[in-house]
Amino acid sequence: MSETTGPTEYEARAKKLDAVDELAAKRAEFVLDETVYLDGNSLGALSVAVPGRMADVVGRQWGELRIRSWTEGGWWTAPERIGDLIAPLVGAAPGQIVVGDSTSVNVFKALVAAVRMAEEGRDEIVVDAGTFPSDGYIAESAARMTGCTLRPVEPAEVPGALSGRTAAVLLNHVDYRTGRLHDLPGLTAAAHAAGALAVWDLCHSAGALPVGLDEHGVDLAVGCTYKYLNGGPGSPAYLYVRHDLQDRFDSPLPGWNSHAEPFGMRSAYEPASGAVRGRVGTPDILSMLALEAALEVWDGVTVEAVRAKSLALTDFFLECVDAYVPEGRVRSVTPEAHEERGSQVALRCDGAGEVMKRLIERGVVGDFRHPDVLRFGFTPLYVGFADAERAARVLAEVLDEVHARS
Amino acid sequence: MSETTGPTEYEARAKKLDAVDELAAKRAEFVLDETVYLDGNSLGALSVAVPGRMADVVGRQWGELRIRSWTEGGWWTAPERIGDLIAPLVGAAPGQIVVGDSTSVNVFKALVAAVRMAEEGRDEIVVDAGTFPSDGYIAESAARMTGCTLRPVEPAEVPGALSGRTAAVLLNHVDYRTGRLHDLPGLTAAAHAAGALAVWDLCHSAGALPVGLDEHGVDLAVGCTYKYLNGGPGSPAYLYVRHDLQDRFDSPLPGWNSHAEPFGMRSAYEPASGAVRGRVGTPDILSMLALEAALEVWDGVTVEAVRAKSLALTDFFLECVDAYVPEGRVRSVTPEAHEERGSQVALRCDGAGEVMKRLIERGVVGDFRHPDVLRFGFTPLYVGFADAERAARVLAEVLDEVHARS
Repeated sequence: MSETTGPTEYEARAKKLDAVDELAAKRAEFVLDETVYLDGNSLGALSVAVPGRMADVVGRQWGELRIRSWTEGGWWTAPERIGDLIAPLVGAAPGQIVVGDSTSVNVFKALVAAVRMAEEGRDEIVVDAGTFPSDGYIAESAARMTGCTLRPVEPAEVPGALSGRTAAVLLNHVDYRTGRLHDLPGLTAAAHAAGALAVWDLCHSAGALPVGLDEHGVDLAVGCTYKYLNGGPGSPAYLYVRHDLQDRFDSPLPGWNSHAEPFGMRSAYEPASGAVRGRVGTPDILSMLALEAALEVWDGVTVEAVRAKSLALTDFFLECVDAYVPEGRVRSVTPEAHEERGSQVALRCDGAGEVMKRLIERGVVGDFRHPDVLRFGFTPLYVGFADAERAARVLAEVLDEVHARS
Repeated sequence: MSETTGPTEYEARAKKLDAVDELAAKRAEFVLDETVYLDGNSLGALSVAVPGRMADVVGRQWGELRIRSWTEGGWWTAPERIGDLIAPLVGAAPGQIVVGDSTSVNVFKALVAAVRMAEEGRDEIVVDAGTFPSDGYIAESAARMTGCTLRPVEPAEVPGALSGRTAAVLLNHVDYRTGRLHDLPGLTAAAHAAGALAVWDLCHSAGALPVGLDEHGVDLAVGCTYKYLNGGPGSPAYLYVRHDLQDRFDSPLPGWNSHAEPFGMRSAYEPASGAVRGRVGTPDILSMLALEAALEVWDGVTVEAVRAKSLALTDFFLECVDAYVPEGRVRSVTPEAHEERGSQVALRCDGAGEVMKRLIERGVVGDFRHPDVLRFGFTPLYVGFADAERAARVLAEVLDEVHARS
């Protein structure tokens, strides 16, 4: 009997926690099954509003109205309109975010523009040494094309690495591998104190925790929309350019969509005012309008409530793992301190690839990141405490098997 | 009676031409109504295969399989797989085209890579003086970021403008305003003779006429997919990099999707081999798979048959306009010679904006381009000769009204 005492206790607690969860009703706004889906930090689940909207966008807006939808259907203004829907989720006033292109392309725009806005003579870009690789590759290209040097630095050491040479600092708000939340207010202030611009990648934080772009004076930011914003596979990314920097935003990708008069068809480029200056080519309407529909789940939800549940979920999951998994079989690389934790738990273990494969076969979907990391993302809008308990329980079973086998 | 003789004659001829049109059955593969849709050179019509495919992509692939679709559903390899579907339409062998990003972003990749492939010391980019504006803005940025000078030259004068300084030449295969088809084989050969690379924008030719990229030794090419390829609003563009240049293709946007080992999550960039080197960030799956479904209409269709019908359609339309519209009211800026004509007819007239507005009200949809151009695009897969006759007839009526009013 003693062997089942643990599970029963945590299952019972999960039930109670789910019963008082103020976001619990949101789960019904997503298409979900009995799977415990802890991969929303890679691809968010489908919101029930999306299929009908897409049928309308394809069948009526494209199929029947065709070209008229560019004006009558609001296609043309979708990048800035949807940017304004994302704005409150990242603490930005309207008019500073534009949706379009991939995160990598937006990192390029933001970094090149940051270097061009920096004081004359600053020729170094500091980048988070543990950055998501694509940001690093693009930063290298931005440095090469602006005559800068790229300097990788661990986020905690960034303040000491800044100098009069630093033009811009590119940081990830949450580390994609460990789930560590970096100190956006402090590091932004440090960059500013050194006279550099702060560029943040919000891929793993937007929609999971408060960002406070305006409040903390962030200069430029980018993020994807297919993780905690549930925009769909490869849905367009976004670019934030702080209001007072927009007139100096000098894009390396000045497409016709960012022209002051896009249909004037002028041969000389004259940049538009405002966030639309971050646009490039024709916006990808199907993906963009799927995202717009997906963002409706945020009606009546505050990021603060999401953050509170996220921390409760990851706390509870870590507690269950601690209770179910024999010591030494996994090691959490996600910080225990709330102020350093994003919305995912990353556990290192031997044979992580095989472990994740078996977890998925048993209906607990997380993902594996090279070389030995199991990632479990907790999307508070549709993941509950019973999911967290079950994930930990199945993880313990799978580790038992894999351990026994070896 | 003599006043109706003309219309009756052309209506009868249209009927006969439609009856023997070998592509006529293709029209049933599109969602169309009684509108004469001559704006497929801006946004292609919806193919009937697309709504069902999108419902599956959204509901099942995203909604049910979620993250598994990246591997099991073929999402990850979509950019190169769909590139290979476009390849035969532009005369390219497989493995040279990758789909993704906007045309503008691809122009940037292609031009910067071209300059980097050019001989040391070449520091000039020649661009079509009448280019679609976005290509010109992006070319200016590519020049600025590679230390080159941008030199706008009329396509016909390009051969004489080339020199030992020319690194690359960016040209539009068909002029977006006039519908003029430029001499791709001749201008490519001229660029090569001068030691420069030839980069072509195929937006207004791919899917409407033979391009022959491989045959004519084009170096790099880009194009959109929402015009004659009917991919949907803002569907992703494509990039062609000739086989033997791929190893030297040095992208200014080296995102993780172009890494030799994208899931290795390495901090050092190592480019993949082949066309995938042109990829950047996470591909936009909804739009990309809509395009894939739309490309099914090309089954059993040759570009040569499309070209023959396109020329017959534009010839017939010009003949009807000539017959119906009193001399002097409109002036065609589309070349009469077949070898200089794309798949659109551009007519200049006074009050073009008002004229197009009235045409659209009467069910003849073309578009207006600043300052005085009426554009009529002929998509041979779904436009027939009766459409061409009706468009000319309604145009004559509208010009009568507008003329009488002024």
